[in-house]
Amino acid sequence: MDKQTPSLPALASHHVDPHAYPNGVAYLDGQYVPVSQAKVSVLDYGFLHSDATYDTVHVWNGRFFRLDLHIERFFGGLERLRMSIPYDRDAVAKILHDCVALSGHRSAYVEMLCTRGASPTFSRDPRDAVNRFMAFSIPFGSVANAEQLERGLHVAISHRIRIPPASVDPAIKNYHWLDLVRGLYDAYDKDAETALLLDFDGNVAEGPGFNVFAVRDGRLTTPATGVLAGITRRTVFDLCAELGIEANAGTVTVTALREADEVFITSTAGGIMPVTRIDGRPVAAGRVGPVTNRLKDLYWQKHEEPAWSSPVSYG
Amino acid sequence: MDKQTPSLPALASHHVDPHAYPNGVAYLDGQYVPVSQAKVSVLDYGFLHSDATYDTVHVWNGRFFRLDLHIERFFGGLERLRMSIPYDRDAVAKILHDCVALSGHRSAYVEMLCTRGASPTFSRDPRDAVNRFMAFSIPFGSVANAEQLERGLHVAISHRIRIPPASVDPAIKNYHWLDLVRGLYDAYDKDAETALLLDFDGNVAEGPGFNVFAVRDGRLTTPATGVLAGITRRTVFDLCAELGIEANAGTVTVTALREADEVFITSTAGGIMPVTRIDGRPVAAGRVGPVTNRLKDLYWQKHEEPAWSSPVSYG
Repeated sequence: MDKQTPSLPALASHHVDPHAYPNGVAYLDGQYVPVSQAKVSVLDYGFLHSDATYDTVHVWNGRFFRLDLHIERFFGGLERLRMSIPYDRDAVAKILHDCVALSGHRSAYVEMLCTRGASPTFSRDPRDAVNRFMAFSIPFGSVANAEQLERGLHVAISHRIRIPPASVDPAIKNYHWLDLVRGLYDAYDKDAETALLLDFDGNVAEGPGFNVFAVRDGRLTTPATGVLAGITRRTVFDLCAELGIEANAGTVTVTALREADEVFITSTAGGIMPVTRIDGRPVAAGRVGPVTNRLKDLYWQKHEEPAWSSPVSYG
Repeated sequence: MDKQTPSLPALASHHVDPHAYPNGVAYLDGQYVPVSQAKVSVLDYGFLHSDATYDTVHVWNGRFFRLDLHIERFFGGLERLRMSIPYDRDAVAKILHDCVALSGHRSAYVEMLCTRGASPTFSRDPRDAVNRFMAFSIPFGSVANAEQLERGLHVAISHRIRIPPASVDPAIKNYHWLDLVRGLYDAYDKDAETALLLDFDGNVAEGPGFNVFAVRDGRLTTPATGVLAGITRRTVFDLCAELGIEANAGTVTVTALREADEVFITSTAGGIMPVTRIDGRPVAAGRVGPVTNRLKDLYWQKHEEPAWSSPVSYG
């Protein structure tokens, strides 16, 4: 390098973090701390290899929504990745509860996650790593903002292909998002607000953090394979059963999506959210449809019902 | 949740990290700190969406090896991901140099990386995030240990498919490794030491952190597409040109690999490393071959030459 370097810079004993973070509480290493303190070592394979799984549940008006389903899916991911944590389902539920209660959030986005961890010797063998569980509660956020929820999202279909199940099993909720992120930038370039990616057969798959449904002649269809089995997606099926609406998981072609009467997306981050433009063209008349609104209203009603939700004790 | 909860746990103001880390120095936020202090916020999209790029260069006997090529590839990744950092190529080189010099490592594994960052409001729009550059130096590590380098690695071919370029562009060096990690566990189950993944056409792609070469009748072939354009892979082409050995990037079928005279893998983490068993069967006679040894010897010789390497000023 530069032989003329007169001296080396100073080595500090501690990092001083100049960045701002949202308000919230995290749990890691047996400690509850402000979310600004929740960090992953740069040597953790959860970062270096995205070798991690997670789940996100939300709290609305002081109540968790379908917490048991999220915890169940999280433990399924741990098992598939051969990770283990020193907590059972009840202990994880208690930790999530305490993160929310300590944060004071009445509406929150609550995440549980486990990384492969690092080994003290930085061994490249993942079996030498110590798996690390973490959880945090931050203020509730949505894929769609208030205006978008009102008039419907504008979506662009990306030419990028969603990472296929033969590479990464979508039953393991994972952080492999570069395809989705680049699809998002493509969408912004086309003046759209979010993106939909296709599968290898050229059919609709999913978007950044959400599943998609098409409504045609009062019947719902959503992609069957190669997508995350979203809890909100599942909730739509449950709501349809209650309302007597026919819903199927199957193939959704791009043409079927463009020619639908209504299109909506589903995510824990925002619930059921209407889509009214695809690649600059309106979906049907370009207005939020009646089936979408009916499902959305019932979805939020369920947040008050004890069979679907559980209260936070803020203490 | 549990209405009987008598009280909430205590909230600490700071996280106390109980984990051990390797010796090394990191740079982040304008500060040089012990690598144990180098952490990524759990809210950084570099973690939550694996929205990051990086490059790794090594130092051997006090000299960087082909640093310029690694920095050039890193800046290519930044551009493709539309990330920007407040450092040019020379400034990054200086930071890497100082991490190594401050660590005192004579042989090191040196990484530069950039994450999308987080936005203070936790906006889901990646354009709102502040990109974060980080670098660190830790002791040199190898894909193969001393015994494996001597007798050759035992590799298993995985049924998992390497994430295809249509999903994630391998020209962007990235942390999307779950396919590789699961392939590694499959390999361990078969008593192998590492894995090779295939592409969607069923041909050989790459393994966890390395490219692969087959030698047949004195000629080399390595997969052309769907793989990282490794600097060590490129170095093999350069060494072959110097030695008058024919080397091509093309299709490598599983059969061609099994029937090769010699097989080796290449990585910054270890250089040129022989493979002597594939799925439990020996490659040719099951011994490290002459072409592999010749290339390996020349590879390490080049580490002393100023045209290929540059010295660290330890001050």
